[in-house]
Amino acid sequence: MPLPVTVRPVTGKLTLDATFKAALTSAPDAPLDAAVGRFVMRLSGRTGIPMLGLKDATPKLRIECASAGNDYPTLGEDESYTLDVTSEGALLKAPARAGALHGLETFGQLVTLGKDGFEVPAVHIEDNPRFPWRGLMLDSSRHWMPLEVVKRNLDAMAAVKLNVFHWHLSDDQGFRVESKRFPKLQQEGSDGLFYTQDEIRGVVAYARDRGIRVVPEFDIPGHTTAWLVGYPELGTNPGPYEIGRHWGIYENVLDPSREETYAFLDAFFEEMTALFPDPYFHVGGDEVEATQWNASARVQAWAKQNNLKDAHAIQAYFNQRVQKLLTKRGKILIGWDEVLHPDLPKDIVVQSWRGQKSLAEAAIKGYRGILSWGYYVDHLSPAAFHYAVDPMSGDAGKLGPEEKARILGGELCMWSEYTTSEMVDSRIWPRAAAIAERFWSPASTKDVDSMYARMEAVSRGLEWTGVQHRANYAPMLERMTAGRPTEPLRVLADAVEGLGLGPRARAGKYTSLTPMNRLADAARPESESVRSMELAAAKMVADPKGSPAEAAMLRREFGRWAANDARFQALAVDSPLLVELLPLSRDLAALGNAGLKLLNALQKGQTPEAGFVAAQTKEITRMEKPAAEVNLAATRPVKVLLKGGK
Amino acid sequence: MPLPVTVRPVTGKLTLDATFKAALTSAPDAPLDAAVGRFVMRLSGRTGIPMLGLKDATPKLRIECASAGNDYPTLGEDESYTLDVTSEGALLKAPARAGALHGLETFGQLVTLGKDGFEVPAVHIEDNPRFPWRGLMLDSSRHWMPLEVVKRNLDAMAAVKLNVFHWHLSDDQGFRVESKRFPKLQQEGSDGLFYTQDEIRGVVAYARDRGIRVVPEFDIPGHTTAWLVGYPELGTNPGPYEIGRHWGIYENVLDPSREETYAFLDAFFEEMTALFPDPYFHVGGDEVEATQWNASARVQAWAKQNNLKDAHAIQAYFNQRVQKLLTKRGKILIGWDEVLHPDLPKDIVVQSWRGQKSLAEAAIKGYRGILSWGYYVDHLSPAAFHYAVDPMSGDAGKLGPEEKARILGGELCMWSEYTTSEMVDSRIWPRAAAIAERFWSPASTKDVDSMYARMEAVSRGLEWTGVQHRANYAPMLERMTAGRPTEPLRVLADAVEGLGLGPRARAGKYTSLTPMNRLADAARPESESVRSMELAAAKMVADPKGSPAEAAMLRREFGRWAANDARFQALAVDSPLLVELLPLSRDLAALGNAGLKLLNALQKGQTPEAGFVAAQTKEITRMEKPAAEVNLAATRPVKVLLKGGK
Repeated sequence: MPLPVTVRPVTGKLTLDATFKAALTSAPDAPLDAAVGRFVMRLSGRTGIPMLGLKDATPKLRIECASAGNDYPTLGEDESYTLDVTSEGALLKAPARAGALHGLETFGQLVTLGKDGFEVPAVHIEDNPRFPWRGLMLDSSRHWMPLEVVKRNLDAMAAVKLNVFHWHLSDDQGFRVESKRFPKLQQEGSDGLFYTQDEIRGVVAYARDRGIRVVPEFDIPGHTTAWLVGYPELGTNPGPYEIGRHWGIYENVLDPSREETYAFLDAFFEEMTALFPDPYFHVGGDEVEATQWNASARVQAWAKQNNLKDAHAIQAYFNQRVQKLLTKRGKILIGWDEVLHPDLPKDIVVQSWRGQKSLAEAAIKGYRGILSWGYYVDHLSPAAFHYAVDPMSGDAGKLGPEEKARILGGELCMWSEYTTSEMVDSRIWPRAAAIAERFWSPASTKDVDSMYARMEAVSRGLEWTGVQHRANYAPMLERMTAGRPTEPLRVLADAVEGLGLGPRARAGKYTSLTPMNRLADAARPESESVRSMELAAAKMVADPKGSPAEAAMLRREFGRWAANDARFQALAVDSPLLVELLPLSRDLAALGNAGLKLLNALQKGQTPEAGFVAAQTKEITRMEKPAAEVNLAATRPVKVLLKGGK
Repeated sequence: MPLPVTVRPVTGKLTLDATFKAALTSAPDAPLDAAVGRFVMRLSGRTGIPMLGLKDATPKLRIECASAGNDYPTLGEDESYTLDVTSEGALLKAPARAGALHGLETFGQLVTLGKDGFEVPAVHIEDNPRFPWRGLMLDSSRHWMPLEVVKRNLDAMAAVKLNVFHWHLSDDQGFRVESKRFPKLQQEGSDGLFYTQDEIRGVVAYARDRGIRVVPEFDIPGHTTAWLVGYPELGTNPGPYEIGRHWGIYENVLDPSREETYAFLDAFFEEMTALFPDPYFHVGGDEVEATQWNASARVQAWAKQNNLKDAHAIQAYFNQRVQKLLTKRGKILIGWDEVLHPDLPKDIVVQSWRGQKSLAEAAIKGYRGILSWGYYVDHLSPAAFHYAVDPMSGDAGKLGPEEKARILGGELCMWSEYTTSEMVDSRIWPRAAAIAERFWSPASTKDVDSMYARMEAVSRGLEWTGVQHRANYAPMLERMTAGRPTEPLRVLADAVEGLGLGPRARAGKYTSLTPMNRLADAARPESESVRSMELAAAKMVADPKGSPAEAAMLRREFGRWAANDARFQALAVDSPLLVELLPLSRDLAALGNAGLKLLNALQKGQTPEAGFVAAQTKEITRMEKPAAEVNLAATRPVKVLLKGGK
């Protein structure tokens, strides 16, 4: 995953053992060599087979890379590769480093545990991406994301062939990069949580070695409260300002009427463009509130003088100035939908949080764009939802070929209002793998069941890149039980799903000082076990007699739910983090009992009583409303039986 | 854990929330400040409470450190501290940085989840260590231990107040440090797996910041095969040599008869003593085989000339030369039992793998010593075994006060023949915490049940230091099931315990190229769940009617074992890593059924039939023999019921 363009199975298999070795057989390329070394280390880790690269062993995986390509990954470069695996060995061929890196990941995903041990089935693969811009945006501002979180996510991105790391580095709640020129940015605007310039350079190099571009985002002129704490003179209002602690849109905005603002930005860009080698530089531009501009006599007088009739015109003026400052430094501006304005040159890129319609409009006007609408992973939607969103669908699908070529791809967005560094991996992975497949594989690759089956396998493989989407679950549950055995909580937690930004924002008055230690924070976006129960329930309904394995599994799981409440109650006594979950636990037990009853009826070929069905349907409708800021996913398999058994 | 010397509970509690702040109120001390910062970050992680050190918040934990103390942690320095917690705040006082660091860890361990959230109970604590040398030895040679493994173990050591990291850096199977002077040591002797000098300096600084000394060990004149691959001229035999791949004692040994050997060591020590600032320098000296010396005409002729009558005398001569080379560099020699010889000066330190008798003999002769016998965690003995070993017991207990003072403490040893970096944390933790308590707390602290209860709580807390003793378990099981749900394997894995070096060495022909991906590798040294079942079974036997919670728990767990075999068999079909476990799974089911039967009898006040008891006793005796290189720990609770119910 992403599924390659062409996969042709061949007879045979390549067995992996301690003699396994991978070697670059084309011209020396130190970064690629290092990548091969890391690849073998990870393979050795995953399989538990020591792979020491013994001197007298012949390489089992040969890599031929025609040219190293550019120093840094570049938009639109050739990322193709071919991979041939036979019983004797494997050959990976690529025109440039990017394809070789992708091919290694494909080889790694082919590794399986066969009857005789770890092996790779013989196969011929030809592959190249559908879109050249396949990104992941991480918000390091709302909640701080330590360096190791960034790095392990770069490794996981590379594993699914994502090639752009869009790094949201400043917002109302934090300015996260060291500026030597304007040190009060981080000193006053970050609570001490920022990346040093050395660390930034380290991340850029780390990404480069994995074939990933780094596009920084400094969101202006709105979303700038954290800048204004140290430099209130940049603001439209005089200040003083404090670091934003709540979520939502702030009114604070840079002052577009003073030349000093542009002089500051010019010097700031000089420093920051030197740190980030990619030609694209993101300046946000979203959600600019007009309130302060409208209320400022100075801004209004200046606007009138410059024939800027409203806030939209003011922002357009601001963006034009910013764009010129970036061009001067050899950078291409990228911004959210709102930056689009006919006065800007055609080389800028629009990132659309509004949808394909907005993207198509930009393309028609001659602008390139990427899609992020539909890929907001912080909404905690199911992978199937994201997977169904295609950058080329809707209005974008109706474009002509030249316009279509302006749609460069997409980016998934990980906003961090309701996500700390502890659970961020679980909000990105494994669902990001499904989105990565949308960006890479042919548009025709869209079977949802196949996607889920492969995503779950990839999810386990991703653990070996270092991301903690699975590993961090247990410690979060253990925290809630204060060290007591977590099993009753885990049974409940496995049966619920977390809520995304919208419902959480409506649920309570969250700030950046709110503890993130409840089930709502630990719960996963999508329950793998509930999904497998839904599938089993559907199979039972379709063929009650012919699904003994499914029946046994459902019986076991329903029984577990039914029996769990008594244990959960004992665990939750006096626990401030568990008490809110008591009604959920009772509902889960009720669902377990209802599931068992429906299962019995199905197996006996009986129709459940109408009164029972009506009562359960009503109960399930009630249970479908979130409680304690989670969804009780467990309703779904019961609902399948309830509908099917009628 | 370790239990402080004096703990006096007081009324009240200190509540932890987002306003929590810790601050050094005495003279500035940058390393201590950084440690306080790390401590707050970890506390924030553990509790899920953001602790941003808000400017207007008053510090809730004040640290008064009378003096920074030495640049590096030093043997025998003052490590004491006092800690007072009240509802208003906490005060940590220490004469020097070492005590302040220890006090922070104590504060962290006091944090608990109360009725109203995370809190620290009010308390007065006075504390200082029983022994000044409290070490952990890690073997990075047999299996390579990457840098992050070393670092996270240093964090965990600090958490339980261990203060010496003894780093076994060379052996027959690998030379693990970059030498610029003799680069073939690592180039030819490490399979490319070695620490650069920068990395070594990084580890030394990392340890220093956590109050930990680093004592390097370069084991000579035996255990030197990896040296000889690049420098065969140092060997007694002419070579050529290859990196050792099997375990056990090698005959290869340095040539003591040539001055070139000492010249090499002199230059080598010049380089290495500069890397490691601690005054103590370990030169191994254990298990020197006489075979090559005896067979070498050159060595024999030289020995005769120098009146060295046997191999023991040769080694004594060699050690004397080595000791002089170290003294010249300002270092004090430390070595294993075998180095002890009257010709060596009294300042050397003996590390005893032989026991307290050997230690006492050294002390009587005027030498200082540390105990490692009884602390070999790679033997996978229960924590209770290690906990019962006291450096001052046996012959050491009979010494006079002056001699007793020569017993500096102890070190637990983590040899890595049967341990890779993946499972090494689980071989060290949490049992090392029990050993750490033996080295720190008063000799009278020896209640085993209290130790286990506290060790299990500490085990969960240790996860937050970064050690993976709990986290790495699930991925190892997932590897074995090739991505299928692991639960049936987990039920079995939780019911078994791993085997230590002895039985594993006897079980098969292991080398460093043997995959380490079986249950034998994933299994933990000691099953926490089986231990709790043993306790419950004992309670049931003592009071069958008065233990309803225990009866319910045992019924659930026995039932789980009984039902697991069918699922396990389905999982194990065609799996090369699971097939060997089928008999174990059947035995576990049988134990579950026997347990249920015994439980029923107990609850009904019946005596089980004599025939049943006899048959089960015989079966259990059979099951107590290791299978598939694990112990079926599950026999133990059934045995308790079987004996008690008769």
